[in-house]
Amino acid sequence: MSAYTAPVEDIRFVLNEIAGLGDVANLPGFKDATPDLVNAIVEEAGKLASDVLAPLNQSGDQEGCKIDNGVVRTPKGFKEAYQQFLEGGWNGIPFDPEHGGQGLPWLVSTAVSEIWNSANMAFALCPLLNQGAAESINAHGSDELKSIFLEKMIEGVWTGTMNLTEPQAGTDLALLRTKAVKDGDHYRINGQKIFITYGEHDWTENIIHLVLARLPDAPAGVKGISLFLVPKFLVKDDGSLGERNDLRCVSIEHKLGINASPTAVMSYGDNDGAIGYLIGEENEGIKCMFTMMNNARLGVGLQGVAIAERAYQQARDYALERVQSRDASSDSSASVTIAHHPDVKRMLLSMKSRLEAARALAYTAAAYLDTANQHADAEKKNRAQAMVDLLIPVVKAWSTDIGIDAANMGVQVHGGMGYIEETGAAQHLRDARIASIYEGTNGIQAIDLIGRKIVRENGQTVGVLIEEIRRFQPDTSNEDLGVIATRLETALVALEQATAWIVDTYQKDTNAALAGAVSYLSLLGATVGGWMMGRAAEISLNKLETGEGDPEFYKAKIISARFFADQVLIEAPMLSEKVTTGAPSITAFNISHR
Amino acid sequence: MSAYTAPVEDIRFVLNEIAGLGDVANLPGFKDATPDLVNAIVEEAGKLASDVLAPLNQSGDQEGCKIDNGVVRTPKGFKEAYQQFLEGGWNGIPFDPEHGGQGLPWLVSTAVSEIWNSANMAFALCPLLNQGAAESINAHGSDELKSIFLEKMIEGVWTGTMNLTEPQAGTDLALLRTKAVKDGDHYRINGQKIFITYGEHDWTENIIHLVLARLPDAPAGVKGISLFLVPKFLVKDDGSLGERNDLRCVSIEHKLGINASPTAVMSYGDNDGAIGYLIGEENEGIKCMFTMMNNARLGVGLQGVAIAERAYQQARDYALERVQSRDASSDSSASVTIAHHPDVKRMLLSMKSRLEAARALAYTAAAYLDTANQHADAEKKNRAQAMVDLLIPVVKAWSTDIGIDAANMGVQVHGGMGYIEETGAAQHLRDARIASIYEGTNGIQAIDLIGRKIVRENGQTVGVLIEEIRRFQPDTSNEDLGVIATRLETALVALEQATAWIVDTYQKDTNAALAGAVSYLSLLGATVGGWMMGRAAEISLNKLETGEGDPEFYKAKIISARFFADQVLIEAPMLSEKVTTGAPSITAFNISHR
Repeated sequence: MSAYTAPVEDIRFVLNEIAGLGDVANLPGFKDATPDLVNAIVEEAGKLASDVLAPLNQSGDQEGCKIDNGVVRTPKGFKEAYQQFLEGGWNGIPFDPEHGGQGLPWLVSTAVSEIWNSANMAFALCPLLNQGAAESINAHGSDELKSIFLEKMIEGVWTGTMNLTEPQAGTDLALLRTKAVKDGDHYRINGQKIFITYGEHDWTENIIHLVLARLPDAPAGVKGISLFLVPKFLVKDDGSLGERNDLRCVSIEHKLGINASPTAVMSYGDNDGAIGYLIGEENEGIKCMFTMMNNARLGVGLQGVAIAERAYQQARDYALERVQSRDASSDSSASVTIAHHPDVKRMLLSMKSRLEAARALAYTAAAYLDTANQHADAEKKNRAQAMVDLLIPVVKAWSTDIGIDAANMGVQVHGGMGYIEETGAAQHLRDARIASIYEGTNGIQAIDLIGRKIVRENGQTVGVLIEEIRRFQPDTSNEDLGVIATRLETALVALEQATAWIVDTYQKDTNAALAGAVSYLSLLGATVGGWMMGRAAEISLNKLETGEGDPEFYKAKIISARFFADQVLIEAPMLSEKVTTGAPSITAFNISHR
Repeated sequence: MSAYTAPVEDIRFVLNEIAGLGDVANLPGFKDATPDLVNAIVEEAGKLASDVLAPLNQSGDQEGCKIDNGVVRTPKGFKEAYQQFLEGGWNGIPFDPEHGGQGLPWLVSTAVSEIWNSANMAFALCPLLNQGAAESINAHGSDELKSIFLEKMIEGVWTGTMNLTEPQAGTDLALLRTKAVKDGDHYRINGQKIFITYGEHDWTENIIHLVLARLPDAPAGVKGISLFLVPKFLVKDDGSLGERNDLRCVSIEHKLGINASPTAVMSYGDNDGAIGYLIGEENEGIKCMFTMMNNARLGVGLQGVAIAERAYQQARDYALERVQSRDASSDSSASVTIAHHPDVKRMLLSMKSRLEAARALAYTAAAYLDTANQHADAEKKNRAQAMVDLLIPVVKAWSTDIGIDAANMGVQVHGGMGYIEETGAAQHLRDARIASIYEGTNGIQAIDLIGRKIVRENGQTVGVLIEEIRRFQPDTSNEDLGVIATRLETALVALEQATAWIVDTYQKDTNAALAGAVSYLSLLGATVGGWMMGRAAEISLNKLETGEGDPEFYKAKIISARFFADQVLIEAPMLSEKVTTGAPSITAFNISHR
């Protein structure tokens, strides 16, 4: 079993030096988010993660969930761990104190969420989904719904779920068939939903399902979908639980990973129809759902960072322990730990460098999110929101690709032992693998990025971002900073070329533009990541010069940034060329059975 | 459950048009390998694969192997399938008719082996290991050992295993501890071996273990290792089975994939010492083992091709069936099959194009192997052997990376369904994952490539290869061939630069050279793959012009080759730059616990 220690030093560095916690704390409503308090929160989260959640990660995977006549039992220890989580008040971090939340920035919630996901991704999914459901109710629910449900969800004594997918309707919600019919002050829901994370479990007395459904006279397509709150148990006026609602968990899936989290097939309305309450307006369900989309995608992107961190820690510890083969640069024939071998260093540094860049990017996006939510100046608010909209698909897709790659490399570092399940490295790969699929596949993120975020506004926000990156002008007399600055400028030029091509091509030949969407997203990720790591290197060099803080941390950060420039940022011109010249064969390809 | 149909058309194309079956059949001893016979063999193999082996792939994965008091039971149907395999004479294809083999080229065996591995990789491992063991006995065993064991193994009524690894000795066989002590005309073996594929099973009455062990007075390191034949049951003079030998299967591993294949922990000599017979000379075990190394690595590389093909077929069929979202280039709002979406086309074409290139490379390496084994002209023999030695690490590592990538993309094409085990896509990823680890990790292949194959001879053979690739000068008035030729020349220049840098740097700064080993191997793979696909495109264009064969096949091949140039070969300059400039951060990186 592998241990997990929250990377508190890097989290603190990214919060304070890269994402700008100080500026976020100055936003209206966030005055409590002092460095000291945030530090204490991160440390406490790290403890709970190491002591309670991480030790359940492998046992939870091996045991999995069981279903018996609609009752789901999660693995041993999970219910008790959740009780500790709940008692720690961890569900409420980003929510309004008015509803029992702690009113802290998303930036802080992001750091804490990374820690939960590193420790135990299958566990962390329930709070993540609950958070999303609470956000939607908070933004669009009636005061009555809020007073009955929201506080309990923010506290975590009840948990929320999101019910979008049906067998024929995944990415394409227009194909959704679940029905809702008005019945007095509520609605009756009928239909089947699949892939419902924590759709049924044994942690709490009630489960609050948010369900997308279609009214009888609704317009076709996504404009005819409404959002309903459908509790497992109806709630009486005094807040106590009433009758069981007409819904049940039919089965749970046998998945590649995240086995400790039940993924439910839910049936609504086998008898009289499940009682549901409208959230927001009729036929505006998609809008209500989209409220929490950016946060949910940020949350999934963080899972990529989190699993990469966990896989890195485990592979690093193995490399420091496993003795195998001589040091190629030494005259001695004695076998040494594999941590001495250049290719093992390459793999570990690739994991570390990319996850650090992805962490910096995700936290930065969270800081933009806080600014967009809270800034007093409308223009700054809008500018921050545009940046959120641009960066979120990158955080989601680029970071989850890094999570999978890192977990894959973690297996490789272990050699044959990596393939043995007892080692635990393979579980990280199995767990990480879902993150590029759910909450919009990474292909969908790339299409969203070029269509909605680049082309629709003629590349304006990405242009602003490129300008901002260009203002990063480090002292190039330092060799590392010099190399980083040169590679970054090359990447920016490549990004400008690809952006111009995408904007120009999208209208004329949409399919050709879409053929390059994933490469474009990777290009943007590499460039922004290179900027993050360049800034990190510059700050680290300054700290080393002033003698502030821990020199080993800063030296390692500079090496990590240099690796990123030489091995990731270096791919930018090639990715740009893939975008601008790679479409002909793809558009010519007609898939056929032979 | 996914079906499998052997890609007979492409296999035939690669055999005849790319790898040169005609030339191979002209080598001494191969006159039976006529196109008609080979065609019939491939068709027959395809039938057995589709009808018998492929249907057991998923059930075998789900059921796995069971062990009870040292007795291993393979999943339902596997023993019976092996009986059919044995009766078909499939074990003997590449072996000398003198010992009951069919005396066919490795090139033919390679094509057939791909088919077994696509159908059921866990099943195919037993014949693969048996083949390797039989080769070692054939090359180094005494006439007595051959007469007792070899024919039975070639027929397949007994199967062979390879026992190298011990807990402390994986890549580093110098650390091996298993002991052998002379005892009359045989030896007594004591020690524990791990990761023994099909070390125990219920398919055959006897299992013939080849075991590496150390004699009491042996020199330290790999020069003190000897190879022994250790049968599960001793064999009497009349060839019937005698006493059980002192060896047992202690346990079998719980693995990420290839679950239908038992991976055994074997204990030798719990009582009086297991009886073993020396193969070859004392202390020359490594040499005897290396005899079959090139074939075994070719076999594992083929597993990459095979799983990519299987994953491709399944993802393709799903894409042609799954209706989701509108066609972005159409005015209609109707949802279409995902096969219409450019990003899905990109994923499928990436799988198809790369697996076709890897197939062409693997078969070509097999043809060189046949030439090296059989050519009458010593110089041609040596030149072919040098090419085998150069290409085998590329076949092994590059193709298995492609297998993993393709299986990973196959999951992605399926969206949420890809993560559900019942779909079967995830199994391909789990199965494929071992191939970059065993038979020498891909990192070890890259180190072998640059150290033993490039630097030791100052890049001579890779220089010959580059010259040969340069002689490919297609008609660049055709747009596709023009693009391919340009990208290929760019890649060759990049390969020359990286090769010169590696040769120059290896002695001065070995660690810096080793830091680029994996990128160098990818560069060589992309370049050789681009050459293969360029030739395939040129041939296809000629066939289309002359109206020969199936135009749809040739058109698709040209698209596949163009994709390879635009999306894989395009990476060559970047990979070369990673080799020549990417080392500083890697060599500076000191892995530590914090």
